[in-house]
Amino acid sequence: MEVASGLAAVAKGFHARGWLLGTSGNLSAVVQREPLRLAMSPSGVDKGELRPEQLLSIDENGKIVSAHDGKPSDESLLHLRIVKDRGAAAVLHTHSVWNTILSDLYASEGGVTIEGYEMLKGLQGVRTHEHTEFLPIIENSQEMPALADRVGQTLSKYDGAHGFLLRRHGLYSWGQTLAEARRHIEILEFLLETMGRTLRIKGKTS
Amino acid sequence: MEVASGLAAVAKGFHARGWLLGTSGNLSAVVQREPLRLAMSPSGVDKGELRPEQLLSIDENGKIVSAHDGKPSDESLLHLRIVKDRGAAAVLHTHSVWNTILSDLYASEGGVTIEGYEMLKGLQGVRTHEHTEFLPIIENSQEMPALADRVGQTLSKYDGAHGFLLRRHGLYSWGQTLAEARRHIEILEFLLETMGRTLRIKGKTS
Amino acid sequence: MEVASGLAAVAKGFHARGWLLGTSGNLSAVVQREPLRLAMSPSGVDKGELRPEQLLSIDENGKIVSAHDGKPSDESLLHLRIVKDRGAAAVLHTHSVWNTILSDLYASEGGVTIEGYEMLKGLQGVRTHEHTEFLPIIENSQEMPALADRVGQTLSKYDGAHGFLLRRHGLYSWGQTLAEARRHIEILEFLLETMGRTLRIKGKTS
Amino acid sequence: MEVASGLAAVAKGFHARGWLLGTSGNLSAVVQREPLRLAMSPSGVDKGELRPEQLLSIDENGKIVSAHDGKPSDESLLHLRIVKDRGAAAVLHTHSVWNTILSDLYASEGGVTIEGYEMLKGLQGVRTHEHTEFLPIIENSQEMPALADRVGQTLSKYDGAHGFLLRRHGLYSWGQTLAEARRHIEILEFLLETMGRTLRIKGKTS
Repeated sequence: MEVASGLAAVAKGFHARGWLLGTSGNLSAVVQREPLRLAMSPSGVDKGELRPEQLLSIDENGKIVSAHDGKPSDESLLHLRIVKDRGAAAVLHTHSVWNTILSDLYASEGGVTIEGYEMLKGLQGVRTHEHTEFLPIIENSQEMPALADRVGQTLSKYDGAHGFLLRRHGLYSWGQTLAEARRHIEILEFLLETMGRTLRIKGKTS
Repeated sequence: MEVASGLAAVAKGFHARGWLLGTSGNLSAVVQREPLRLAMSPSGVDKGELRPEQLLSIDENGKIVSAHDGKPSDESLLHLRIVKDRGAAAVLHTHSVWNTILSDLYASEGGVTIEGYEMLKGLQGVRTHEHTEFLPIIENSQEMPALADRVGQTLSKYDGAHGFLLRRHGLYSWGQTLAEARRHIEILEFLLETMGRTLRIKGKTS
Repeated sequence: MEVASGLAAVAKGFHARGWLLGTSGNLSAVVQREPLRLAMSPSGVDKGELRPEQLLSIDENGKIVSAHDGKPSDESLLHLRIVKDRGAAAVLHTHSVWNTILSDLYASEGGVTIEGYEMLKGLQGVRTHEHTEFLPIIENSQEMPALADRVGQTLSKYDGAHGFLLRRHGLYSWGQTLAEARRHIEILEFLLETMGRTLRIKGKTS
Repeated sequence: MEVASGLAAVAKGFHARGWLLGTSGNLSAVVQREPLRLAMSPSGVDKGELRPEQLLSIDENGKIVSAHDGKPSDESLLHLRIVKDRGAAAVLHTHSVWNTILSDLYASEGGVTIEGYEMLKGLQGVRTHEHTEFLPIIENSQEMPALADRVGQTLSKYDGAHGFLLRRHGLYSWGQTLAEARRHIEILEFLLETMGRTLRIKGKTS
């Protein structure tokens, strides 16, 4: 229940910032590893009003094992892949104006390169602002198993990445705790907004 | 009373986001179909402070049938038209900075074409981001019966549209439930802001 | 006390929107006409934390008549001029990013012309979006009696204006009630932001 | 404890404005001068959820003297330098999108020149909008003792400055009271945003 309350609080905060409008986005956190039980936000619910008891419990195949009528998000497969491949304890997915814009603007380059910002130090394992973070961009798709495979390949290819973008869709990040996942989202959203606003003054130079 | 509380909560949330400033905008929801009774926000009230008991009850001609001294918005006729033509259960009308800007910028094209965004999937009946949403723009007017007729023609011509813009005025959307109407507004506001901010980086290309 | 509570609530709301940062701005409302008693926000107080009992009572010359140690804002003279010349019951003065920018950008033209927006209809006495509102810009100064005279001349010259800008300083508006004054500020702030953001897409054309 | 509650309240407010996202930024206030005891925000804590009892007490060398397991921010040395060199009672450090952008854009000029804005009058000792504030920009570094020395040299060279920027990192300001420090941050953030948005309309002219 503590996990569910934590997810609901994060959802409410992100909704207030405009990162989860229109029931978009989804959130999950590991409740138990063996066998895997993931608390997962239901599909189609206003994230500003998500209540802890609405969180679904799903197994490693994305099947609901709690007594809920709702259905899990189609993107549960992506959450499960990240939990398995990264050993993450929490996965958060936001739709913000700025992540949507940059996921499109940098699509032809395969990702967004972020470097030289102090804010990067808040990403797990990063010790200096001289870090280079490459946020891969994956083409959007409604074929979830195929998309989950591309996510898996991307996580493997960019094994230091703290998140990725789905083109014209949104941002995924994760952490070893829910607090770390939230911190990663706040940092990446901040940096994408900073880069987007800088582009408008200086033009796209990278 | 539940309908009225729901409308007041939506009004408060949208006011906080700056979409209903200066007593602008209005909200309605069907309380009863036969004969039609619509709960309608009164004219000239601060939407951040709208109380459930202030919602007017109007009939199919826009006449107040509740014991209120207030007057309904001039735009009640547009709400009634949408309720009848679309079978909507709730109609929401917002004045945001971004919907005002895009309603003017795309007026010569007759509407805004939105396509390729995942966020579109939150619109009722849309299954893929490859959807093309055309948001028609109607020239603004103070002649309400004539404007209601143009709204009716527009709804008929663009029968798949989930909303429309009044030029330099605002956005209308609706839903089969109040939650659906709110979701539609949040999605369309998000997409208009995303397109507006993209325009500033890339220029207007469509 | 009701007047003071109302002013404190408006201050809190505007501070949250970033229109009264850093103890900037000030608010007043008429408590009594004969002799004139104006409830006035004290100088140097955080507007997000203004308490009703902190409101000063000043007379027609700006002298404090309540038992307060604080001092009234230097700009009390401007409030008093507006109360007298316009018969206003409330005067509000905000420092927003957008009003600061436009007060500078349009200074050489003597004011900002706003026309064709539905939002204008929320200004007292305006019946159609075809209204033209001219918001005069007055050069900023620290010489309060002289500035109050220029405000008086401006109010007289533009007798239909619902507000004015001080260059690189802020917006003044007022109303026959506190609610009307608040509505006017929200509308003018909305329109200045809309025009400012439009400028960035289309360039300055007027 | 009052100092700690005050810092927690400021942290919560600034987090809501997006100036302390992702556990970034830090805050301190003097509890006692002889020997020096500084209440300091711990490293890695979400500033929107900072509780008074989490504030560390550090001595003049940055060593924790309270019974806490947490560690102080690496930047404690900068806070201590400001407290000593300026006689400040509170030091606040924010990471906002706009201060990050301008700290980079003006780095080659050594700082940002801000002049002619009424908002400047809220800075301690400033009596007119004709004031010129030069906000020095210091190159970012992870070598804290060396960076603290550069901060000391900068404070000495620009002895009238009310704050400084670390490049691509953030803003520092301070005050003789916590309220004054908060006011200074709000004013400088407002002015940096105003200048940044103006740049996008007029281009960089200074």
